Amino acid sequence: KKSDRMARYTADQLERVTQELVPPPFVPKHEQVAKGKPKVVQVTLTVEEKQVELENGVKAWVSAFNGSVPGPLIVCHQHDYVELTLKNPKTNALAHNIDLHASTGALGGGELTLVSPGEEVTFRFKATKVGTFVYHCAPGGIMIPWHVAMGMAGAIMVLPRDGLKDGHGNPIRYDKAYYVGEQDFYVPTDKNGKYKEYSTVTGSMNDTLEVMKTLTPSHIVFNGAVGALTGKNAMTAKVGETVMFIHSQPNRDTRPHIIGGHGDYVWATGQFNDAPQTDLETWGIPGGCAGAAIYTFLQPGLYAYVNHNLIEAIMKGAAGHIKVDGEWDDDLMVQLKKPTKMA
Amino acid sequence: KKSDRMARYTADQLERVTQELVPPPFVPKHEQVAKGKPKVVQVTLTVEEKQVELENGVKAWVSAFNGSVPGPLIVCHQHDYVELTLKNPKTNALAHNIDLHASTGALGGGELTLVSPGEEVTFRFKATKVGTFVYHCAPGGIMIPWHVAMGMAGAIMVLPRDGLKDGHGNPIRYDKAYYVGEQDFYVPTDKNGKYKEYSTVTGSMNDTLEVMKTLTPSHIVFNGAVGALTGKNAMTAKVGETVMFIHSQPNRDTRPHIIGGHGDYVWATGQFNDAPQTDLETWGIPGGCAGAAIYTFLQPGLYAYVNHNLIEAIMKGAAGHIKVDGEWDDDLMVQLKKPTKMA
Amino acid sequence: KKSDRMARYTADQLERVTQELVPPPFVPKHEQVAKGKPKVVQVTLTVEEKQVELENGVKAWVSAFNGSVPGPLIVCHQHDYVELTLKNPKTNALAHNIDLHASTGALGGGELTLVSPGEEVTFRFKATKVGTFVYHCAPGGIMIPWHVAMGMAGAIMVLPRDGLKDGHGNPIRYDKAYYVGEQDFYVPTDKNGKYKEYSTVTGSMNDTLEVMKTLTPSHIVFNGAVGALTGKNAMTAKVGETVMFIHSQPNRDTRPHIIGGHGDYVWATGQFNDAPQTDLETWGIPGGCAGAAIYTFLQPGLYAYVNHNLIEAIMKGAAGHIKVDGEWDDDLMVQLKKPTKMA
Ligand SMILES: [Cu+2]
Ligand SMILES: [Cu+2]
Ligand SMILES: [Cu+2]
Ligand SMILES: [Cu+2]
Ligand SMILES: [Cu+2]
Ligand SMILES: [Cu+2]
Ligand SMILES: [Mg+2]
Ligand SMILES: [Mg+2]
Ligand SMILES: [Mg+2]
Ligand SMILES: [Mg+2]
Ligand SMILES: [Mg+2]
Ligand SMILES: [Mg+2]
Ligand SMILES: [Mg+2]
Ligand SMILES: [Mg+2]
Ligand SMILES: [Mg+2]
Repeated sequence: KKSDRMARYTADQLERVTQELVPPPFVPKHEQVAKGKPKVVQVTLTVEEKQVELENGVKAWVSAFNGSVPGPLIVCHQHDYVELTLKNPKTNALAHNIDLHASTGALGGGELTLVSPGEEVTFRFKATKVGTFVYHCAPGGIMIPWHVAMGMAGAIMVLPRDGLKDGHGNPIRYDKAYYVGEQDFYVPTDKNGKYKEYSTVTGSMNDTLEVMKTLTPSHIVFNGAVGALTGKNAMTAKVGETVMFIHSQPNRDTRPHIIGGHGDYVWATGQFNDAPQTDLETWGIPGGCAGAAIYTFLQPGLYAYVNHNLIEAIMKGAAGHIKVDGEWDDDLMVQLKKPTKMA
Repeated sequence: KKSDRMARYTADQLERVTQELVPPPFVPKHEQVAKGKPKVVQVTLTVEEKQVELENGVKAWVSAFNGSVPGPLIVCHQHDYVELTLKNPKTNALAHNIDLHASTGALGGGELTLVSPGEEVTFRFKATKVGTFVYHCAPGGIMIPWHVAMGMAGAIMVLPRDGLKDGHGNPIRYDKAYYVGEQDFYVPTDKNGKYKEYSTVTGSMNDTLEVMKTLTPSHIVFNGAVGALTGKNAMTAKVGETVMFIHSQPNRDTRPHIIGGHGDYVWATGQFNDAPQTDLETWGIPGGCAGAAIYTFLQPGLYAYVNHNLIEAIMKGAAGHIKVDGEWDDDLMVQLKKPTKMA
Repeated sequence: KKSDRMARYTADQLERVTQELVPPPFVPKHEQVAKGKPKVVQVTLTVEEKQVELENGVKAWVSAFNGSVPGPLIVCHQHDYVELTLKNPKTNALAHNIDLHASTGALGGGELTLVSPGEEVTFRFKATKVGTFVYHCAPGGIMIPWHVAMGMAGAIMVLPRDGLKDGHGNPIRYDKAYYVGEQDFYVPTDKNGKYKEYSTVTGSMNDTLEVMKTLTPSHIVFNGAVGALTGKNAMTAKVGETVMFIHSQPNRDTRPHIIGGHGDYVWATGQFNDAPQTDLETWGIPGGCAGAAIYTFLQPGLYAYVNHNLIEAIMKGAAGHIKVDGEWDDDLMVQLKKPTKMA
């Protein structure tokens, strides 16, 4: 088989390319069908510890791959090698590493990548499995849930070399792709119920761990803050466009839903080699997993993209918008009689 | 393809029928295989704000489509048009609307259907996707999770025109169908832990929202109250009968299970165009989703139908009964030795 | 069909064998492909009520099938009969029974097996459905969630007579199998937040039920205690070995993940007659369900096997280890540049 032949190359025989990572919800430029032989895809992630505003007046310390929560989406094809440099600037206080669910061995790379402030490390893995996969920091012990609950997670998409297929061998292609990273935060409160602030990341640790033990997040947000994907930051599409949404959650189960739309093709656990589910209203993604859904927009308007636990969406923050331009189709939906006084 | 030809009709070319909606767990009379051309299916939903008894002595305000939690199941076939009139009597205090996950655009109809007390509205959508889908009120902002947490949700089943199929193209038919709507409630307590009562729906809002923020329901019930599907309200079946169970949860993940039975065929996210899973003990339905399971009963007796988080089933209320008549089959199960003193 | 012919035998025509049950994570000796006719598989489960140490200094009362949490895995093939004797020694304080999700009727056997302290009972069921299935105690009412939350659950694996298959009819075989039973515990605390101890199982009931109502476990553990599958109790494998992991959770949803590995083939709800999902990072198992995953290890090292809600894994206890011997493969992963001072 062609794919097996491609698997036989080793890294030293292959072309090297540098992938420009971009902040989510954007996705690096990529081919949907691989051209030629596998490649060595070089990427760099730099960890930034900083305070962010989760919502108006509520601050939280994050550890952020390339400064964003989630970290940037990495994209490659099966049999590519990913060569990753992880940098931990000396301005940081904590040691970090990276565990990529797409990789094989050494705790997903975690054992080979632990860097103290001021250090960098480079490692390489072969993308043997196709799909969408979470990556996250996992420096050991209690640092693991804490760093992840500080937003230190992202995703990698490993596409089949010949592109996505439906369950009957037909190609599926998308016009654009967005990456939505959902993250649970656990901001401590004082005895009056007011969210607390901390002047250092280490100072925030113990209180945050206490909240984490309750398994009840104070915030569940898309792309790092309440409203990060609304207003001028809304995602966009056009009627007739086919959009892929990659969605990751490193901890809690989630259930993406496009209000007014559907998942035409859904790989809820991200596994592109299996037949996608079709025509879903909502899809369940287990914690520690990245999934993908594809939808062709048929109507214009402002769509909400939510975690359909509506309390988590509206009261905790897990909601974004998609602004879709185009012509309204009365055949699909029409208001026949405006709101009027009841007979 | 036949189904494509059917998709080409528009609403004005089609016969109009009125669907008599019935209170859950019952399901409107319907054909499993569509006869003739698509239809325009007219339904009316009237919102009722009222206080109900969730369990002995515990009251909660609900907003209920047609007075029941969940609202009634709507049934149609793919390519049918659903023409829905939503009435909000002037005796109500709140504005309401409807977002149907089966529809396309305008926030699932939510944008076109907002009615103040004393108003009604009529809109129409085409059922382009097959499956079981949640509908719910979604009047915007904090009203969304609050109205849904007041039970303002139901489901619609869009059947394939040629009926259900297993994964090999063979028809699947059911002898009867039940609709179980699971709903999380968040009843506030006073400082002694006693459930509070409120004289108005708006008066109950702020306290209820505070409980919702904990993500921990006080009650999780089937069909509006603890015990709504037990005793004289138990579902019924006969040995040899094939029963479909449609199950919706607008918020939280759930995991239906028939104690002593199975899911012979299960569409956990409700998607009838995909091959069903077979022979499941328990199926996971993500929040914001309606799923369906089919079981042919092989033994008589009283079955429990539960959400198999057994704390949610027994301590929060998510349990019902199915009373099955018929002959016991010793080959499937037999008590060989009654409880006796241990040797 | 051959399988139909096998289904026609009745228990009295068949050979009887006694299955030696073993403590988890170990799995009874078994054939992957059934030889000859179905069998009557005799097993005995004895209930032990006892106090265990969940983690250093934290004690909890458990009700344990054969003294272990989870109870032992039972293994048989489709069309076998399972003849089960349940013993409740008079040293116990509570009545117990068993509900097996693999069986049909009488609340999964629960109605036929209730035994008071000092009693035993024997019943038999036919394993008509293939898959991995939870069993648990379900003595009625509030006893159901309480006994289950005391660890009184296990699993049974019913293999297809001709063994496991991928989605294309090809056989899947494993070199070894482990059974991981995940269990949520709800240990009460005193007003200083210190975990309480109780001198009797009945004395622990009311406080434990109060914690259970919060739906927030104090502990979520694999095989009965924090660290039960680490250190000298770690699971083991060799590079090149194919290992099956059966995973059950009687209550809460879970999401198994092998850090540094994958699920090559996954039946998340345990249903062996359906095509497995392939190449998963993480798989979602609904509460009240047992699932199975198969992985061929490609790298040596210490793998963690976790519930990938990382708070549940690290702060609540849901983590184990797999020690894998063999040769490291630099092609799959290599550290190219050790941690060094950043440029
Ligand atoms: Cu880190
Ligand atoms: Cu991970
Ligand atoms: Cu409403
Ligand atoms: Cu919705
Ligand atoms: Cu028991
Ligand atoms: Cu059960
Ligand atoms: Mg691998
Ligand atoms: Mg994935
Ligand atoms: Mg559509
Ligand atoms: Mg559905
Ligand atoms: Mg059965
Ligand atoms: Mg069968
Ligand atoms: Mg869940
Ligand atoms: Mg779930
Ligand atoms: Mg199972």
